[in-house]
Amino acid sequence: MECDVLVVGAGVLGLSSAYHIKRRDPSKRVVVIERLGGPGQGNTAKSMGAFRNIFTSETNYLLTDSTIDWLLHLQGDLGHDLRLHMIGYLWLFSEPQYRRLSGPLSKIKARGTETTTYEEDELRRIIPDLVTDFSEDEEADLMGLEEVSYGVLGHKCGSLDADALARSYERLFLELGGEVHYGTEARRLLLKPREELGIPGEPFIWQESGIAGAETTRGVIEAETTVVACGAWAEVILSPIGLESFTRPKKRQLFAFNDPKLSRLINTKGLNSDDALPLTILPKAGIHMRTEVSERSIWLGCADGLGRGFGLEEDPQPEEDYYGNNIYHALVRYFPCFSDVRPINSWAGQYDINSLDETPVIYSGGGIVYVGASSGSGIMKSDALGRIAAANYYGEEESELYGGHRFRVADLGVKSRHVEHEAFVL
Amino acid sequence: MECDVLVVGAGVLGLSSAYHIKRRDPSKRVVVIERLGGPGQGNTAKSMGAFRNIFTSETNYLLTDSTIDWLLHLQGDLGHDLRLHMIGYLWLFSEPQYRRLSGPLSKIKARGTETTTYEEDELRRIIPDLVTDFSEDEEADLMGLEEVSYGVLGHKCGSLDADALARSYERLFLELGGEVHYGTEARRLLLKPREELGIPGEPFIWQESGIAGAETTRGVIEAETTVVACGAWAEVILSPIGLESFTRPKKRQLFAFNDPKLSRLINTKGLNSDDALPLTILPKAGIHMRTEVSERSIWLGCADGLGRGFGLEEDPQPEEDYYGNNIYHALVRYFPCFSDVRPINSWAGQYDINSLDETPVIYSGGGIVYVGASSGSGIMKSDALGRIAAANYYGEEESELYGGHRFRVADLGVKSRHVEHEAFVL
Repeated sequence: MECDVLVVGAGVLGLSSAYHIKRRDPSKRVVVIERLGGPGQGNTAKSMGAFRNIFTSETNYLLTDSTIDWLLHLQGDLGHDLRLHMIGYLWLFSEPQYRRLSGPLSKIKARGTETTTYEEDELRRIIPDLVTDFSEDEEADLMGLEEVSYGVLGHKCGSLDADALARSYERLFLELGGEVHYGTEARRLLLKPREELGIPGEPFIWQESGIAGAETTRGVIEAETTVVACGAWAEVILSPIGLESFTRPKKRQLFAFNDPKLSRLINTKGLNSDDALPLTILPKAGIHMRTEVSERSIWLGCADGLGRGFGLEEDPQPEEDYYGNNIYHALVRYFPCFSDVRPINSWAGQYDINSLDETPVIYSGGGIVYVGASSGSGIMKSDALGRIAAANYYGEEESELYGGHRFRVADLGVKSRHVEHEAFVL
Repeated sequence: MECDVLVVGAGVLGLSSAYHIKRRDPSKRVVVIERLGGPGQGNTAKSMGAFRNIFTSETNYLLTDSTIDWLLHLQGDLGHDLRLHMIGYLWLFSEPQYRRLSGPLSKIKARGTETTTYEEDELRRIIPDLVTDFSEDEEADLMGLEEVSYGVLGHKCGSLDADALARSYERLFLELGGEVHYGTEARRLLLKPREELGIPGEPFIWQESGIAGAETTRGVIEAETTVVACGAWAEVILSPIGLESFTRPKKRQLFAFNDPKLSRLINTKGLNSDDALPLTILPKAGIHMRTEVSERSIWLGCADGLGRGFGLEEDPQPEEDYYGNNIYHALVRYFPCFSDVRPINSWAGQYDINSLDETPVIYSGGGIVYVGASSGSGIMKSDALGRIAAANYYGEEESELYGGHRFRVADLGVKSRHVEHEAFVL
């Protein structure tokens, strides 16, 4: 098979890139291959499915804010049901954390990003299940847990069904005449000399070579350009050819709860129009949870750091003890309503973490476009990253994001990368 | 065993770091562990053993130039026999390459770095074995080989015995009372909570934790600080704990020749006081060679790019065809004296390549100092990197390099990394 563009990976970034490349020039033959059986069945579907425009980094802000606008347009105007709910993000901060972040927060507000700051007593009134004060709790003190003094709510933030979003990208792409082949795994990228000499052993080190497609489980697919957008698997496909993914895979686990004890918490009123607990981040260890609005359940995860190893797992699984004998100890101090509540479901996926700057990487050259290292924010940046990947493919210096902002393509690249340090990492 | 500082790796960077940490405060108990049987027996000993101060990046220049001064001091004043020879580096450029690099070269000269530029006819006079013009060679033209129009010789450049250098660092370290344990492999880093609670399952995700030493094949070594400086193996020790090495291992092969046909080339006159061929870089594919002065032989390697995969090998081996059916095709066009000459020896090692900026990374935090990603220039930067690692350990913002230049420690770190793009990569 031959095509103009071969996209490896039908996750949210592969499909968004394929869609935007095809949209710009529907005459191009754009083929997506995916080893799994459907769109987004890798790590996209395992995600928390949350989005926010609250970032200190201007780059992160531009990528998410424009993508959120596009998601709202997709659901509101184009009629795609993404189960998108603007439930907001609520950061719970201790006094010292809040003080440390006052600079970054001012910067965020100065952009015009809508936030509301709540003091401790207001928080307790709105979320009666929340414990903000550990003066009566010796154990929490011994555990070194931070008390809650402030809450900062971001309004242009929420949740969606990541699976539905992947299917939407697929539908948009297919409507333009794109092709998707499931159950088709890229075994290795094809390296070919620009000018073949017909001598055994090509390509030689002294030949100019480039990627010319991929050998797949269903045969060779030759392509003028190969877009590698397979997230945590990027390393597996890029490393053998000597290309960098600038990322390592890291497991993240999610736990779902719908115990009657959590009913008041789930149905928190006054913070959004869904009367639902926003995606709420505890002041400790990146423990966070959100309402799954359509099921009126809670999904909970943790941004564990040092001690959580890197490494690709074929089928990552949640760990027996991780909730019950780890997160739980801290969680129940802040939310005693979780006392003796066990998850009804749990699953695990893999982040593709860029430890340098926690910002995605898009580079091109030698016949490939790489889109990855999304570091856990690939869904909420999916539209912008797809557009930038397309601009890269078409050799443009700038990409027009949804809403019209022009983004310098090289900023996410390698040689003249320009991204800012992010203070709000989850 | 307990110590103040545990250094993992007795290669040139581990030993230099250990030496500089110990030198600054000999009362510290500094212990180096190494899985192999002697100093530098990993990739240090497999190296080309060449050094240069010709870099466009100011950072690379400062790190190498000060290290070269220190190497000259070590051999010249302190009487260490490093088999160091100032044979120079000679870049052979085509007309377009030279034009493209004229900006970077002016920058290099503006620093006061001594270089000499030779035109084609001078080059042919000095190196009669060199073919600069392919107008009579249809095959070379078909192969896309670049003709040679200019040669740029860097004078503060040369070669040394990498093995001897590692032994020198070891001796300096041992003289100060340092300890080195060979045949001792770090199995995994120890993660401990800052405040232990004595509950099974520690460290929990809600505890502040840090690295507290390593479990080794000869038992646990507890350390206040662990310095990870094991080059291509860094990933193996850092990944399981969720720390980044910002590097991937990549094989490099070297081939040694001493055929009588090469005698005139080896004994090239007029470019250095050793009357020896400098480290000479062909205009194609990063093929480079140097005189091994003490043996009057030639060592040859290649900076192969796309197509050469990443991946750690336990015992990398040179490949049968790589010289004879790959490098050779191009080499013999430039140097017909290699015709039918076979290597008398060959070996392979692994670079630890930082694909982002080809510049080393030194960061600290959570009980570790990481020194690595040297990208093939660890030997020629070894003294500077050891000093910067020590400054990192002692919590200083600046490190004084040999010669007195003050270097901002954070420039090689992660969060406020500041290094420049390098135009002269090999």
